[in-house]
Amino acid sequence: MTSKRYLIIGGVAGGMSAATRLRRLDEQAHIIVLERGGHVSFANCGLPYYLGGVIEERSSLLLQTPASLGSRFGLDVRVRTEAVSIDRDAKTVLVRDLATGEETVEAYDALVLSPGATPVRPPMPGGDRMLTLRDIDDVDRAMAELDVAPRTALVIGAGFIGLEMVENLVHRGLEVTLVELGDQVLPPLDPEMASPVAERLRDAGVDVRLRTQVTELHADSALLSDGTTVPAEFVLGSIGVRPDTSLAAAAGLEIGERGGIRVDDGLRTSDPHIWAIGDAVEKVDAISGEPRLVALAGLANRHGRLAADAITGRDIRVRDALGTAVVGLMGLTIATTGWPEKLLRRVGREVRVIHTHPASHTGYYPGAQSMALKLVVDARTDEVLGAQGIGGEGVDKRIDVIATAIAGGLTASDLADLELAYAPQFSSAKDPVNMLGYVALNAAEGLTPSIQWHELDDAMAAGDVLVDVRTPDEVAAGAIPGSINIPLDDLRTRIDELPEGRVIVHCKVGQRGHTAVRLLAQLGREAANLDGGYLTWQAGESARLDAEARETAAAA
Amino acid sequence: MTSKRYLIIGGVAGGMSAATRLRRLDEQAHIIVLERGGHVSFANCGLPYYLGGVIEERSSLLLQTPASLGSRFGLDVRVRTEAVSIDRDAKTVLVRDLATGEETVEAYDALVLSPGATPVRPPMPGGDRMLTLRDIDDVDRAMAELDVAPRTALVIGAGFIGLEMVENLVHRGLEVTLVELGDQVLPPLDPEMASPVAERLRDAGVDVRLRTQVTELHADSALLSDGTTVPAEFVLGSIGVRPDTSLAAAAGLEIGERGGIRVDDGLRTSDPHIWAIGDAVEKVDAISGEPRLVALAGLANRHGRLAADAITGRDIRVRDALGTAVVGLMGLTIATTGWPEKLLRRVGREVRVIHTHPASHTGYYPGAQSMALKLVVDARTDEVLGAQGIGGEGVDKRIDVIATAIAGGLTASDLADLELAYAPQFSSAKDPVNMLGYVALNAAEGLTPSIQWHELDDAMAAGDVLVDVRTPDEVAAGAIPGSINIPLDDLRTRIDELPEGRVIVHCKVGQRGHTAVRLLAQLGREAANLDGGYLTWQAGESARLDAEARETAAAA
Repeated sequence: MTSKRYLIIGGVAGGMSAATRLRRLDEQAHIIVLERGGHVSFANCGLPYYLGGVIEERSSLLLQTPASLGSRFGLDVRVRTEAVSIDRDAKTVLVRDLATGEETVEAYDALVLSPGATPVRPPMPGGDRMLTLRDIDDVDRAMAELDVAPRTALVIGAGFIGLEMVENLVHRGLEVTLVELGDQVLPPLDPEMASPVAERLRDAGVDVRLRTQVTELHADSALLSDGTTVPAEFVLGSIGVRPDTSLAAAAGLEIGERGGIRVDDGLRTSDPHIWAIGDAVEKVDAISGEPRLVALAGLANRHGRLAADAITGRDIRVRDALGTAVVGLMGLTIATTGWPEKLLRRVGREVRVIHTHPASHTGYYPGAQSMALKLVVDARTDEVLGAQGIGGEGVDKRIDVIATAIAGGLTASDLADLELAYAPQFSSAKDPVNMLGYVALNAAEGLTPSIQWHELDDAMAAGDVLVDVRTPDEVAAGAIPGSINIPLDDLRTRIDELPEGRVIVHCKVGQRGHTAVRLLAQLGREAANLDGGYLTWQAGESARLDAEARETAAAA
Repeated sequence: MTSKRYLIIGGVAGGMSAATRLRRLDEQAHIIVLERGGHVSFANCGLPYYLGGVIEERSSLLLQTPASLGSRFGLDVRVRTEAVSIDRDAKTVLVRDLATGEETVEAYDALVLSPGATPVRPPMPGGDRMLTLRDIDDVDRAMAELDVAPRTALVIGAGFIGLEMVENLVHRGLEVTLVELGDQVLPPLDPEMASPVAERLRDAGVDVRLRTQVTELHADSALLSDGTTVPAEFVLGSIGVRPDTSLAAAAGLEIGERGGIRVDDGLRTSDPHIWAIGDAVEKVDAISGEPRLVALAGLANRHGRLAADAITGRDIRVRDALGTAVVGLMGLTIATTGWPEKLLRRVGREVRVIHTHPASHTGYYPGAQSMALKLVVDARTDEVLGAQGIGGEGVDKRIDVIATAIAGGLTASDLADLELAYAPQFSSAKDPVNMLGYVALNAAEGLTPSIQWHELDDAMAAGDVLVDVRTPDEVAAGAIPGSINIPLDDLRTRIDELPEGRVIVHCKVGQRGHTAVRLLAQLGREAANLDGGYLTWQAGESARLDAEARETAAAA
């Protein structure tokens, strides 16, 4: 039997995982990795931090080199080498050395496409001044510009990577403007979960421009869609990425409805000898069961390995993608898994929503940090559809636990029963994830009906009474307009003061509100809890102020 | 309908959860909580930290008072009040006010027993000098002794709470001796996972005495079973706890085989009007399905709430207990869930064991901390039976994720597919939990056979060849006796140097070893990886040195 030839196009996360796994499974094969850029297997998620000086050495980003991969894994790694076209009938790829222009033809038994995605670039005058950050060449270009010490920077796009760019440019001491087309920063999150991020950015001196586009880039400034000009000696963009399907499409491989390479649940393209992985490929969304583009390093790595398994004859089945992500920003941790409430409501899913504001660990042990958690649940099945968290320490842990619960098919109520590690420094006897489960149980059993911050205005307009059960001191520091204050501990004796109608109660975070709802319900009053209490309402109000600003602008 | 009378005996974690939940479910009921001690609803897990001065205010420990519980929940909370006996036929409890000696009889419709557990006290001369730390009275007594500024302390028992005591006494500046009857500190862990803890303690100046008993306590010293005397002006013990079943047993309620109150999966005792929860009660072990005593605050709280649900006519089913626990010690985090390898082997379970040594986050981002993880897997079903972790940041997160995976019925291989939150500060593209899954997959597929540190001697005695595939620099810093060094990158070309026989390979942590095994296997050699590499072997060797010291002592 002659040895196999495996050809891999793209030498970063997914491609390199496939190549090294192939070697572990087939010592005899000839394994060729073609990479258009100058480097393989680099730390793409570290690029913003190298820019900001947090990662000091450029060499730290280079995890492997063609030479190290050659000696350890016997891989034939060729950088600055482009796959020009695929001849599927002949099972060959036309390959061009970008340095010499020389072209060769490489035969394959199996081909893996891992071309990644390319940054979206808005067409505008001066648009080529906008740098992006996908590979080492990009970061070298950006560093060269930063070396001439600009004082002002513009970041376009307030997604996860955009915020990392902002953080690092602020860290370098630049004055930063952040421009985002949407209503909010971090579009994958719900608005009330993202609004504290915008506040944190503004507090750090970042000029945050929502619902705004950049229309022209000049030498050291930018013209925005609202007619204003902002300083922009340095311009970095992270508007989104587009699957790089050019090679696949030209070869006649099927492209999916979202614009990514279509693969089956064995990662095989429409050609039985070609597999595809990574950001260029459509995944199946775990919540909707529909195709989805998810550009995450973890999935790329996992799928690279699975593709190698499939190519060497193993039986694989790719799991649907949940899309768990996290970002650190100026001391905040923001994480999400599954779908946000807004998207679920948009597609008509009936959801139950739970907001809590727990501490990272017991309040009596020093150093506890506060966080906000949100759980979105299928109202019919109690299935967990999504979760979001924002705060200090421990946010990533709770989102990881919930992502794992979803993977294990646990329901929202099941979260109450999770046995999570507790000591005063690490959690509470009822972990924040357990508490979400407790609240979910109360909701599922109909014990404590709740309404959301965005439903309050309609409820009050319909004649509901809003009762603030916090203490007078808390109320004095800020209250929801139109509320009546009766502290929880007085509610039993002062219930007669309540006007007719359904009672909406609220406290600071929702816990005392729950007790108040139970009390009122048992005393014969229809009652509901304002989910997440004053803190969630306040975050929602902050998000709404931004949205109203848009309507005002549109009306003007 | 007259209102119900609910009587709850024990006013800490479980009892108070039951009481407040009962109120939320039944506003009309008369709810009486009887607590023998002087306080209810206090932070029992915080007691060692108050002793150490980490928690500065005694008032921080008192989460609720009888008065606050009265006004908020309408609870009739009576401290320093003892339940003397239960008349099950009459459905009454004889109650004694410990201050006045006055006795009354309280009727109940439902009775909840949450009496907790009492510390084990070894019978020995001077034994009453040993203080324990279960409630506020205990901590007040201990503080009074510490106020006279002793310089030396003895801690008896090296379990989770014992280590918290040591940490806090060291923090206060005392010279501490730690005496433990067993072979190792932290008996619930496997020895190679616990041995770094003993090292950390010794580095901090703690005199750690394993396989030792205290035989006599004198005024300011202690005589040990090895004949030596250690200074002990202050003596604190945490040898274990015994379920407090006195009241239940006297009332003729069924006691289980482990010595705890027996309840069904609805938390009901052998009397249909009496429920029991917390440390006094036997749980069902999630791994063995057998009765088990687990004294954990999370379960007590959860079961308190469930008991209230059951009493008010809701259908409940208690989950089997996994026993997840964590402790922080001098910068180390040590956590565990499920069963250790040693216990599983003892009961004859066929297990696969995986050790890894990942970083808390990507190595290229500053501040990554190392950890050791261990996964114990059913070799037949791939079921996760247990996990342990020790290290810095992020250990608690990984154990929580694995505990959740077990609860969700995920297999060891499934861990590879978990989508966990990744950014360079929080994890790696392949999270440490994913990596455990990858290794588990390789093991399940038979790709990379492995042996454990404690199997190496036998393997080498049987003629296996041990090949160290690390670099010469690494080898120079310490190597396993009898190994041959061939760095991984040279293995392809130097394979002919290997003697006959099965080849055991090892690297530092196991990853290069995996690649080496794959290479050797495909080149026709029988090979196995030393699981966890040099680091796990070294930790095991350190544990073994302690065990050998015992044998030497026994032989002498």
